[in-house]
Amino acid sequence: MNTIQTCYSPALFHLFAEDQAIVVVVDVLRATSGICTAIHHGVEKMIPVAGLEEARRYKQMGYLVAAERNAIKQEGFDFGNSPFHYIDEDLSGKTIAISTTNGTQAVEAARSAQTVLIGSFLNISALAAWIAEQERNVIVLCAGWKNKFNLEDSLFAGGLAEKLLATGKFSTMCDSTIAAGYLFKMAENDLYGFLENSSHRKRLKDLHLENDIQYCLTMDTMTTIPILRGDGLVRLVKEEVSAG
Amino acid sequence: MNTIQTCYSPALFHLFAEDQAIVVVVDVLRATSGICTAIHHGVEKMIPVAGLEEARRYKQMGYLVAAERNAIKQEGFDFGNSPFHYIDEDLSGKTIAISTTNGTQAVEAARSAQTVLIGSFLNISALAAWIAEQERNVIVLCAGWKNKFNLEDSLFAGGLAEKLLATGKFSTMCDSTIAAGYLFKMAENDLYGFLENSSHRKRLKDLHLENDIQYCLTMDTMTTIPILRGDGLVRLVKEEVSAG
Repeated sequence: MNTIQTCYSPALFHLFAEDQAIVVVVDVLRATSGICTAIHHGVEKMIPVAGLEEARRYKQMGYLVAAERNAIKQEGFDFGNSPFHYIDEDLSGKTIAISTTNGTQAVEAARSAQTVLIGSFLNISALAAWIAEQERNVIVLCAGWKNKFNLEDSLFAGGLAEKLLATGKFSTMCDSTIAAGYLFKMAENDLYGFLENSSHRKRLKDLHLENDIQYCLTMDTMTTIPILRGDGLVRLVKEEVSAG
Repeated sequence: MNTIQTCYSPALFHLFAEDQAIVVVVDVLRATSGICTAIHHGVEKMIPVAGLEEARRYKQMGYLVAAERNAIKQEGFDFGNSPFHYIDEDLSGKTIAISTTNGTQAVEAARSAQTVLIGSFLNISALAAWIAEQERNVIVLCAGWKNKFNLEDSLFAGGLAEKLLATGKFSTMCDSTIAAGYLFKMAENDLYGFLENSSHRKRLKDLHLENDIQYCLTMDTMTTIPILRGDGLVRLVKEEVSAG
């Protein structure tokens, strides 16, 4: 039996870290949904950078750079944090540096892990299927909001955990995972409605980003799984997927 | 409108701290249930101390001292962490120093707040009633388990939040509070059953502490509210309660 744990805040990840575990980083609204979308639509590599200054250095080096803070695209960069930016044939084969309020900080916190995957509702079943073949422990790292718990990332953690537990290959004694599972079961038939009152949905609604939210809360629109290799997130290739 | 926030880990409390807020510290199984019980049954003061070495100094000074780690009473001290220790007429008027795995660390984290109250299911409605009269923001600080989220403290946070929201005097934009409220509504008719799978209930069950758990999960058995004054937790006196 392998175990599942859920960490609700990048600031607490040191309490969870296990060398051998697979870490799934999630920032549903919107960073990891965007990364999944970019890699799925042909972007070669996404380089997560924590700080805006580092993002500016990438810009100066000639990279395409996405930079968002508090849900708003930062001036002088190519993209903000909308997944729709990346549905663009011209980006095929490109490398893009990305810095966001929470998601890229979470990748940074997880960097020491042997395997770091990027999760979102878009690829949740594909993720569960691949992970279930690995015979390794799993830690879901929720990006949250500025190191605080958020609902949408926890719902994803609960959903992934439910799918893994259903395989019979995993167990959990982790209260965060149990709580997230309960929340997911309440919400799964209407994620959008369930998140009506959540803080970040309100934040994005005020910015007229309802389309982004609908897109990010739609399950299983792709089977692409981004994985951290060296400095960047790339596609976990089909051979790896089928090889398990 | 005053606000309600919930902090799931003492290690994240710095993200929440507001000078003027009332902080409710909770460690349902079992530290804050024990503190409520002690003060209710006539103990004059409970001095929370974070470390065992400090606890030993109190012992050397002649104090009665409770000391628990990982649910087990530590050798050389008078009490462990069972609330039943404190249902004892001989303790009336006494001062007891107490050091536990999580609860006293949480009080330590909250110490800078202007008002620190001790919560448990035993006094949840009395707490809600008093707080509702104060016209101040509230932060529930869950002691958790070694800085990780736990279910029972979150359920308490959800229950207190539901009671406060029902007064119409409070609102919340805090996702941890919203999630805790959903969990409480699922669990409130059978807290004991709901926690069947929780990590700490299993831990205590293995130590044959089922009676303690039943006791700690019974709502509204007292109206006593412990409050931090200087170095110790004492009874919030009736005049303060009725004066609001």
